[in-house]
Amino acid sequence: MGDAFLKAQWYVAGWGTDLAPGETLARTYLNEPVVLWRSETGAVHALQDRCIHRAMQLSAGDVDGEILRCPYHGLEFNGEGRCTRIPAQDRVPDTARVRHYPLVERQALLWIWMGEPEDADEGLIPDYPIHEDPAFGWRSAHYPVKGNWQLLVDNLMDLSHLPYIHAKTIGGNPDLHFRAKTNSQKLDNAVRVTREMPGSQPPPTYVDAAGFTGLVDRWQEIVFEPVIIRIHTGACEEGTGAYTNGEYGVHGANRFSMCGFHGITPETETTTHYFWSMATNRTEDGMVEEVFAQTARTFQEDQDVLESQQVRMEQFGNAPLIDIASDVGGRHTRQFITRLLKEQEMYRKVSPQRDTEPA
Amino acid sequence: MGDAFLKAQWYVAGWGTDLAPGETLARTYLNEPVVLWRSETGAVHALQDRCIHRAMQLSAGDVDGEILRCPYHGLEFNGEGRCTRIPAQDRVPDTARVRHYPLVERQALLWIWMGEPEDADEGLIPDYPIHEDPAFGWRSAHYPVKGNWQLLVDNLMDLSHLPYIHAKTIGGNPDLHFRAKTNSQKLDNAVRVTREMPGSQPPPTYVDAAGFTGLVDRWQEIVFEPVIIRIHTGACEEGTGAYTNGEYGVHGANRFSMCGFHGITPETETTTHYFWSMATNRTEDGMVEEVFAQTARTFQEDQDVLESQQVRMEQFGNAPLIDIASDVGGRHTRQFITRLLKEQEMYRKVSPQRDTEPA
Amino acid sequence: MGDAFLKAQWYVAGWGTDLAPGETLARTYLNEPVVLWRSETGAVHALQDRCIHRAMQLSAGDVDGEILRCPYHGLEFNGEGRCTRIPAQDRVPDTARVRHYPLVERQALLWIWMGEPEDADEGLIPDYPIHEDPAFGWRSAHYPVKGNWQLLVDNLMDLSHLPYIHAKTIGGNPDLHFRAKTNSQKLDNAVRVTREMPGSQPPPTYVDAAGFTGLVDRWQEIVFEPVIIRIHTGACEEGTGAYTNGEYGVHGANRFSMCGFHGITPETETTTHYFWSMATNRTEDGMVEEVFAQTARTFQEDQDVLESQQVRMEQFGNAPLIDIASDVGGRHTRQFITRLLKEQEMYRKVSPQRDTEPA
Repeated sequence: MGDAFLKAQWYVAGWGTDLAPGETLARTYLNEPVVLWRSETGAVHALQDRCIHRAMQLSAGDVDGEILRCPYHGLEFNGEGRCTRIPAQDRVPDTARVRHYPLVERQALLWIWMGEPEDADEGLIPDYPIHEDPAFGWRSAHYPVKGNWQLLVDNLMDLSHLPYIHAKTIGGNPDLHFRAKTNSQKLDNAVRVTREMPGSQPPPTYVDAAGFTGLVDRWQEIVFEPVIIRIHTGACEEGTGAYTNGEYGVHGANRFSMCGFHGITPETETTTHYFWSMATNRTEDGMVEEVFAQTARTFQEDQDVLESQQVRMEQFGNAPLIDIASDVGGRHTRQFITRLLKEQEMYRKVSPQRDTEPA
Repeated sequence: MGDAFLKAQWYVAGWGTDLAPGETLARTYLNEPVVLWRSETGAVHALQDRCIHRAMQLSAGDVDGEILRCPYHGLEFNGEGRCTRIPAQDRVPDTARVRHYPLVERQALLWIWMGEPEDADEGLIPDYPIHEDPAFGWRSAHYPVKGNWQLLVDNLMDLSHLPYIHAKTIGGNPDLHFRAKTNSQKLDNAVRVTREMPGSQPPPTYVDAAGFTGLVDRWQEIVFEPVIIRIHTGACEEGTGAYTNGEYGVHGANRFSMCGFHGITPETETTTHYFWSMATNRTEDGMVEEVFAQTARTFQEDQDVLESQQVRMEQFGNAPLIDIASDVGGRHTRQFITRLLKEQEMYRKVSPQRDTEPA
Repeated sequence: MGDAFLKAQWYVAGWGTDLAPGETLARTYLNEPVVLWRSETGAVHALQDRCIHRAMQLSAGDVDGEILRCPYHGLEFNGEGRCTRIPAQDRVPDTARVRHYPLVERQALLWIWMGEPEDADEGLIPDYPIHEDPAFGWRSAHYPVKGNWQLLVDNLMDLSHLPYIHAKTIGGNPDLHFRAKTNSQKLDNAVRVTREMPGSQPPPTYVDAAGFTGLVDRWQEIVFEPVIIRIHTGACEEGTGAYTNGEYGVHGANRFSMCGFHGITPETETTTHYFWSMATNRTEDGMVEEVFAQTARTFQEDQDVLESQQVRMEQFGNAPLIDIASDVGGRHTRQFITRLLKEQEMYRKVSPQRDTEPA
């Protein structure tokens, strides 16, 4: 499992705030070393992080106006990777260019297209309006995960691990989680897992945030769309319509929502960029910070698990494992990813000439 | 040399005191990751350190009564590796089990059987009554060796390195060592090397411990039995029968004995667990501690040698080396190990279906 | 590129001062682990750093008079690698020898011959009289470079990187460098690159050292001879004959010279020993120290570049790169090295029995 990448996808490359005007940033995505840079007027670009002259890392270079200059011999490149100047040489040959990756800044995120540049369609970038919704407050982070990206997908699609890994943080009572019915649906380009916990005792955070005095109707909604996951958890007062039409919280009273964005970008076969944000509709009294801090602690616990799994996955290769009942959402997601990987394989077979990335 | 393991053997897995009730311990033996754990009532168990569900390391889990619980999704395993509970699921399938290694606690040691579990015969565990003999005092240690296990066997079977590596600790005069005749015997399931140094000046430690005032008859006796080594060194007053019947020290006067136990357990092809204890029959006036501290210093010197050899062994592979006269005991032991490895190979060929360990 | 070595060459093994009488030094050259040692009377020797008995590193041993003693079992070796004593054994077999590398101390340098010992001709050792010339003062260093040796050759043969990498140290004005005409000549067993900058404003260091008050005629002369590079930079007062007969500085007035010696010795395919010295004819007022300190800062900047290139070279293998105009000297040198490697390859084919180094 897991040593293949979906190439023709928009991936989260980082947060817009990672990159100030005039700065460069070296990151690896899908095993490809990339330099992200922002011109002095604010445009963002992504190029292969290797000068076409002597393989120097361009990320060590300088942004000057709208170009990026190699620090070794001073070659200059524009945002499309074309060399625009070679010192002490009049003509710049056509071969003097480095690979260019489409990069779009939207809703606080930087999105990079890892397929063929000419296939990039900005209309396919996942929408995440919460980052721009004044009704929500949020904070973001970037965690380096020492595990294959599919282990992180598994982790997020099946929250039945909460009472164990997160026993000391957000876990709560195992029975509560296991009584909740898990429903997993395969959608056109997504997998949606929902769990409803009607008539529950609200956890302390919920009481703090929304001032619940009685029981609540809680929900968890997890949606995978390649290659991000949106998780919406929350509660309304019991019996006020929390679950109406499957639009969790929209119709209920005194809604408390925590909306997690999870950008999952493979770095290598064994490491993953995890770009996440946590938003809440309760923005008073430091709730945004509290919810973020609690989530950060929780996700740290997950890092240890993923690293532990990765070690054994590498040692044992494809030795058999078993599924359990709560894996339904994760299994649907795996099946979906496997289908996408197969389609990609078939596409490569019919158009092999396009498969030109350096090995 | 050295990149093969003897599978069907009892190996020292650790000291009983390494593992308190309710604790887990992750160790690798013969390249296989194992979790050792002790139940809350004190029973010791060894399982493959990989949950059959999502490959999580069980050593990160919790002991609860007589079971070990996976920290990721809460699966519970008993001492035989059988899953006894899967949360949110009524039926536990028969395939929900992890590999079990027979583990026995005896004479202060934990012994693990690395062959097929059904072949484990506790009667084959090497006997070491000194750990329970009130006439002896002893201390123990666990050294991680950065070298192949056979390099450690070589090191212990040929003590002619004492005057060089241990010149600053227990070495003493090279001539004394080289005048001593080395006798090496191949026994049924062992190799025994002896050296006698009659009429020697006793070393300072010997004088401190036994109060020798004249010359002594010294001996060294080294016995390899797969895969431990017992080393008995000591002296009696000269001419009082130190060597009678080859039972060193039994019949002589004012005996001083140092008895070393050396458990040699391969961790990987290039690293070894070295579990050793040092006992003496002179238990007054801090002699137990002094003898142990001196030995510990000496063995640290050996670690550097083994690591240095390992580096070159990896670089030069099977490039030729030569034997010298003092290698006789080591050579007998190598021949014995080679014979055991060949027998193992033949056995595997006639019963290949049993060879089911993960690669 | 770059993963081949020129074997039949004298390489710089170190500085004479690296090795005091009675000392050993472990270094790897061309992937071969070597022990350098100096006998108590001052003779220098180089042997394979692996005892023929049990592969112990001889560099951990002791020099005793004119022999080197293995620290494990006390075998003794002379400067030619022949074992002269095996403890507790009368006869020393003829096979008891380790590989010997011819090692010569000359002009403050230790030179090692990495080809077949019988082919070593001391007459081929590059001459560097400046190290013994009282008109010059100099200092030396040994830098470990995390890059293939050919990257370092490239770096030194093309100084057009000065205004970029060394912008903050010795770089100066890019235009000045690019206006200078680069002349590259292929000689019999060398490549010589020269650049002349007549009528230049002298840099601050030049003014400090030579007290120039007007313009100067500057030069750079870079000569590659396998496998060292000599770089002579400097200036005379304008129009006084700085360039006469291509003997830079000999015929001009108020000469200021900086003479760099660069010994480039591959350690592995991906790391290089860089032994360099910087000499100047202006030895008063701390100029020797000032010139050395400035150069040391500059070369540190180059280390980062070479390491950065190496990372990408390993990732991208033989993926295409382009040459630019200023590469002419570097390209000539590459062509020369490639020719030498091909000759070596042909020679091996006709005499394969000599190719006996351990893999």
